[in-house]
Amino acid sequence: MAHSFTMTDYFDKHHERLQQAVEATQTRAAWSPFNDSPSRKIHGDAVDAGLAAFQARLNKPFEIDQPGTIGQTGMEVSPYTQEPLGVTYPKVDVDVLYQAARKAIPAWGEAGARTRVGVCMEMVERLNKNSFESANAIMHTTGQSFPMAFAGGGPNAQERGLEAIVYAHLAMSRVAEGALWERAFGSTKVKLQKQYRLMPRGIALVITCATFPTWNAYPAIFANLATGNAVVIKPHPLTILPMALAVDILRGTLRDAGLDPNLVTLIVDTPAEPIAKELVTRDDTALIDFTGSAHFGKWIEDNARGRPVFTETSGVNSVVLDSTNDLKGLAQTLGMGLCLYSKQMCTSPQNVYIPRNGFGVGDSRLTFDETAQTLVESINGLLSDNARAGGVLGAIHNETILNLIERAEELAPSRAKLLRESKPYAHPDFPNARTRTPVILGLDISDNDIYSREWFGPVIHFIAADSSEQALQQAASDAKQFGAINSYAYSTDAQFIERAQNAFGDAGANVSINMIGPMPLTYAAAFSDYHVSGLNPAGNATLTDEAFVSGRFRIVQSRMAV
Amino acid sequence: MAHSFTMTDYFDKHHERLQQAVEATQTRAAWSPFNDSPSRKIHGDAVDAGLAAFQARLNKPFEIDQPGTIGQTGMEVSPYTQEPLGVTYPKVDVDVLYQAARKAIPAWGEAGARTRVGVCMEMVERLNKNSFESANAIMHTTGQSFPMAFAGGGPNAQERGLEAIVYAHLAMSRVAEGALWERAFGSTKVKLQKQYRLMPRGIALVITCATFPTWNAYPAIFANLATGNAVVIKPHPLTILPMALAVDILRGTLRDAGLDPNLVTLIVDTPAEPIAKELVTRDDTALIDFTGSAHFGKWIEDNARGRPVFTETSGVNSVVLDSTNDLKGLAQTLGMGLCLYSKQMCTSPQNVYIPRNGFGVGDSRLTFDETAQTLVESINGLLSDNARAGGVLGAIHNETILNLIERAEELAPSRAKLLRESKPYAHPDFPNARTRTPVILGLDISDNDIYSREWFGPVIHFIAADSSEQALQQAASDAKQFGAINSYAYSTDAQFIERAQNAFGDAGANVSINMIGPMPLTYAAAFSDYHVSGLNPAGNATLTDEAFVSGRFRIVQSRMAV
Repeated sequence: MAHSFTMTDYFDKHHERLQQAVEATQTRAAWSPFNDSPSRKIHGDAVDAGLAAFQARLNKPFEIDQPGTIGQTGMEVSPYTQEPLGVTYPKVDVDVLYQAARKAIPAWGEAGARTRVGVCMEMVERLNKNSFESANAIMHTTGQSFPMAFAGGGPNAQERGLEAIVYAHLAMSRVAEGALWERAFGSTKVKLQKQYRLMPRGIALVITCATFPTWNAYPAIFANLATGNAVVIKPHPLTILPMALAVDILRGTLRDAGLDPNLVTLIVDTPAEPIAKELVTRDDTALIDFTGSAHFGKWIEDNARGRPVFTETSGVNSVVLDSTNDLKGLAQTLGMGLCLYSKQMCTSPQNVYIPRNGFGVGDSRLTFDETAQTLVESINGLLSDNARAGGVLGAIHNETILNLIERAEELAPSRAKLLRESKPYAHPDFPNARTRTPVILGLDISDNDIYSREWFGPVIHFIAADSSEQALQQAASDAKQFGAINSYAYSTDAQFIERAQNAFGDAGANVSINMIGPMPLTYAAAFSDYHVSGLNPAGNATLTDEAFVSGRFRIVQSRMAV
Repeated sequence: MAHSFTMTDYFDKHHERLQQAVEATQTRAAWSPFNDSPSRKIHGDAVDAGLAAFQARLNKPFEIDQPGTIGQTGMEVSPYTQEPLGVTYPKVDVDVLYQAARKAIPAWGEAGARTRVGVCMEMVERLNKNSFESANAIMHTTGQSFPMAFAGGGPNAQERGLEAIVYAHLAMSRVAEGALWERAFGSTKVKLQKQYRLMPRGIALVITCATFPTWNAYPAIFANLATGNAVVIKPHPLTILPMALAVDILRGTLRDAGLDPNLVTLIVDTPAEPIAKELVTRDDTALIDFTGSAHFGKWIEDNARGRPVFTETSGVNSVVLDSTNDLKGLAQTLGMGLCLYSKQMCTSPQNVYIPRNGFGVGDSRLTFDETAQTLVESINGLLSDNARAGGVLGAIHNETILNLIERAEELAPSRAKLLRESKPYAHPDFPNARTRTPVILGLDISDNDIYSREWFGPVIHFIAADSSEQALQQAASDAKQFGAINSYAYSTDAQFIERAQNAFGDAGANVSINMIGPMPLTYAAAFSDYHVSGLNPAGNATLTDEAFVSGRFRIVQSRMAV
């Protein structure tokens, strides 16, 4: 086994980082191995090199030397230029690809947990080194601003991947390799040598999403790989390039480790000929990870026929305003949270509840209109400068989101008050960018046919409630029934805060209280923030808990008389 | 909270046992807190008291003060007397019962992991104290012999339950209660206090089986309870009493701890009006554990719609004979393994492969006929005395198993050679017992339409293979395709042993090598033996690994600006 040395080397090479990561997942205090600022001061030439690498990918086939290639496909369009990227990817014969993946598994299983963890750590390291090329790819497929594409799609996503490796490493380490077992039956002592072997499940399908591809994909990919499975990645047909880059890097790492690169492969489809259902229902798909719509996530759960499924879908995230001592800070933070990436995130707040009996600000109470106006003005200020707007809003991922905005605006004046109109803004760097500022509708709490579902895109609801208490109950009830990942509450009343923690907790919606400051509301830190509870329709898997990894491998035992 | 002291007390009371159990699950060396011999020398008056308690249950309603009782039902018949037990159980309004269970969950969740683990430990202790009443109930519903009903249904089952508590305890303990999190965004330091709350999933349905009710049920029940869920138990309609006794004890423990007894409830149905499908598909069934047929297990997996499902069903367990140095010991051990409880166990060996080119015994080789004859003679010897036959075979659970025996015998002479005929034997204590000795068919490896499925009951196949290698491949392939829990191989050849470990390991069938001695082949030790791999159709859950508990609770987070 000439490659053994190399493989073990990766574990040793990253041992210190792994130990730090283990400690971080246990304490869940802040820890980051990577810097998530794209600053040239920190990264130097890597900034330009990444851009150049991205540009060199355009208008040509993306070569992946995986088996079963029967053509080329790909139709991504940049939300910033609204021009095709011109990148094509292998169109595959799925049977051939699956066969190659299956063939790669036994040696990967036999390589052992230590080797696999080492190789996965090296993969994360290499993904990190390629963060700038990846950030450009994410930007020009998702419409994220460059800083977000770098931070959220690069270091933050890589760290979530690392976190999954840690959980897999710990879960596997806790299984004894064997035991000498002795007990008496009657007067005879029976002595058995037992071996416990960790076994992969097989081929793991990872279906990634259109707007935040890497952040959920990396944890799934690494949880699967570290536990011995092969991974087949099926990206959203409009957001392929970031995953193709990852596949390229992961295959390269496997090759350098003397392992079969077909442990990681890519299947690209088109909106006209989607392939996800076929992949999900294949008998030889052993595990399924999915990020995307709640509708299709539910379909997968319903059709998984006993295979483990890990989903993160969407939700109705609420903000309940009770009281604050810092209206300006609140308006800035919440305004930013409502605008960030044009609200194209599963964690974005959508429904802002404002009590009709007054939002407590210091010793006074603001009316619904006063509160709404303060928030609208804060958002207007934030977006008044096009350069800043570009950094905050980014671009709109696709045309259907423009339709969504139209449908929202058509609700006024009959069903809603138009508190803020959506308009294109001129992106300073990309004059053809598909852009819209957010529309804000004024609604009553009785209008739950409108607000009790996800409006994925820059559509915000300000909802008048009789009281913050009523708002809390409605928001928590919607979270439970329709799904929510995050929820937000602002209050100076310790008892209200406790009720909010309990109500959202019971609904399985993580809650952030009195968040004011430069941290984006939607920010979820690897090693510390649990993402998605699994207790409401927003998804069934948590990044990252033990349940995210423990079912991805199995244990087979042999026992022998000594 | 007047009951807090009592509850905490249970954790303290059992703390030492818990610590020992934690160590045992980690090392997986032999450890037993309970003695599994039913000897009067050890247990004294408990033996007669248990029998008397069982007899006092007969011919009257079994009172359970759970809500929703709308009548009485129950139609169990003792396989030993073939007379009705005459015990009836509450017939329930499921909606009312579920409502009561749901109502009980919040306080149980808020009681905290430590309290729940303590209460569960106390439950196990009380179950153990009632092992003799339970053993009589198991004997007279399943047909097990009394010693097996005591050991397997009592201490061994209680220990598997304790093991599940340990895994739940450890999994919950590994989640930090909170973290103080600080990082800089730009020049500003953000400081958050985070709380991580363990949340139950809801109502857990545990469907228990006809022949070994407690052994799989206790782990499921305790994994669910320890993680904060309520448990609804739906026993097999012919084997209710053992579960009713458990429900009674668990409800009593909850009541003594000042908790809502409706955390554990019983739903009894009849073969004519089965209710399992209705319970599985209820929206408010949050978790499902099932022990029973592979067919219904698959139906549950297919219809679970995203809810976690844990199954243990059935398999085709094989024995591959390659070579031995102890023919007599092998024949005794294997003969006992084939006969025990009339082969009405999911772990029983069924298909014994004998190489046509000779079974190596020391320096000589036995023909198929010589090997078969040796095994048949060993079995005949074992069963020659009715008292001993009673202890080994027990009784036949139900009439359909008699039909199965008939169908097997009808295969001779056209499709099979009748190597041993099945006959009733006279049970020394119960002249009306439903008894049969095993039928043994001689088959060829080409007869896989006959042997490649489970024959649940005293039907054994001796299969002639060209070689032990061919036998191994067929046995492993059947395990993978049709499911197997255990497999067995006898060989003096280290390389053959390794091939057997690999082949059965790849098929997800635990393998026991060269087992000779007083330990029953089917014995699986809590804290040491992993039961079911999840890698073949014999079930998807393992007793007990982390995956068996980790998905039964969820984590919800709150974070607050400091």
